[in-house]
Amino acid sequence: MNPVPGSQILDHLRWRYATKRFDPTRRIPDADWAALEEALILTPSSYGLQPWKFLVITRQDTKESLVAPAYNQRQVADCSHLLVFAVRREMTEADADRLIDFTAETRGIDRQHLSGYRNVMVGDIVTGARSREATHWAQLQSYIALGNFMTCAALMGIDTCPMEGFMAPAFDEALDLAEKGLTTSVLCPAGYRDESDKYAALPKVRYPKADLIEHLP
Amino acid sequence: MNPVPGSQILDHLRWRYATKRFDPTRRIPDADWAALEEALILTPSSYGLQPWKFLVITRQDTKESLVAPAYNQRQVADCSHLLVFAVRREMTEADADRLIDFTAETRGIDRQHLSGYRNVMVGDIVTGARSREATHWAQLQSYIALGNFMTCAALMGIDTCPMEGFMAPAFDEALDLAEKGLTTSVLCPAGYRDESDKYAALPKVRYPKADLIEHLP
Repeated sequence: MNPVPGSQILDHLRWRYATKRFDPTRRIPDADWAALEEALILTPSSYGLQPWKFLVITRQDTKESLVAPAYNQRQVADCSHLLVFAVRREMTEADADRLIDFTAETRGIDRQHLSGYRNVMVGDIVTGARSREATHWAQLQSYIALGNFMTCAALMGIDTCPMEGFMAPAFDEALDLAEKGLTTSVLCPAGYRDESDKYAALPKVRYPKADLIEHLP
Repeated sequence: MNPVPGSQILDHLRWRYATKRFDPTRRIPDADWAALEEALILTPSSYGLQPWKFLVITRQDTKESLVAPAYNQRQVADCSHLLVFAVRREMTEADADRLIDFTAETRGIDRQHLSGYRNVMVGDIVTGARSREATHWAQLQSYIALGNFMTCAALMGIDTCPMEGFMAPAFDEALDLAEKGLTTSVLCPAGYRDESDKYAALPKVRYPKADLIEHLP
């Protein structure tokens, strides 16, 4: 497999910025979007539990209806594809069983061989200490997906804007998430920067490397 | 700028897996690691606050000392570079001021023009509703960095293993994090898979696309 040079990756990460104004006339080609969906699916998650659902909204009126609950940030409507990261509110034994069954089937192994794996998972996220913060745990996983998504998009020359500023209850209601045991974790409009977006040209603000990276002895 | 084709990205994401056994004799070249550090620094974060520190450990005895608090998972010692994502325990007005000052300096603008931005940030993370969960918020940001890091590494042909299974208090103590106002969020050993790692060849377990992605009307 052909590695992508670090310098090429960095060029794209420097090009990326939180897009404030999308060009509402440009649409991400279907093939590119399909690749991004596949990248989302390939995101790693804790225990492989994939406690998420990725909602994709392209219809203009639906996007417009979500501008108000996103504190009137126009990116939600002007983007090409609005991506909503939804996560599980809690994790149950049934979730663990589903993963075990699916793993056994995918890998052609006996379910019994996975009982230790199941026990650790259940004792942690379903009945253990972290079960009380299962939504938080699921939200963390969705941020791995967010990081993966934004990097892949940047590499493909597609703009994104990560957004935590929205009313989650309003999104949950508009998207019928509560009844599915889901809640809105984070948003990421994707598309192409508008030429008029002055933020594109501003220098990136990052603290000095010495403050962010420490090499331990 | 030359976009990376989606198909090439997906080849690398399919090649990636949570490496169970690293080849302890192989080291990531300095130039590659430097690019990965730069990629970490370029990770986007909420408000641009960068509430993190990335600790890099390559010394064998230091890595070995962290195997026990990582529940004896050998990846911590057998990897080339052990990356520890540390995050801020809380966010203060001083943190907001630091970002405002640094932004004004970097972009050559007057600090006064950023007062609205400062107020929103402080009213949210420092004194507002989310200040009570500032550690959680900071941890979320670190998972964006984790996702970005693993994807960049995979593109460069470097293996990783995201790890939530470790005793955070023991890591905090060993790395002197508490006194710096930091706590351990997540670990990610990086290096090269060992030829004997049978997990490398196992089919990836991902739920069907129809269960993970939903296109809204």
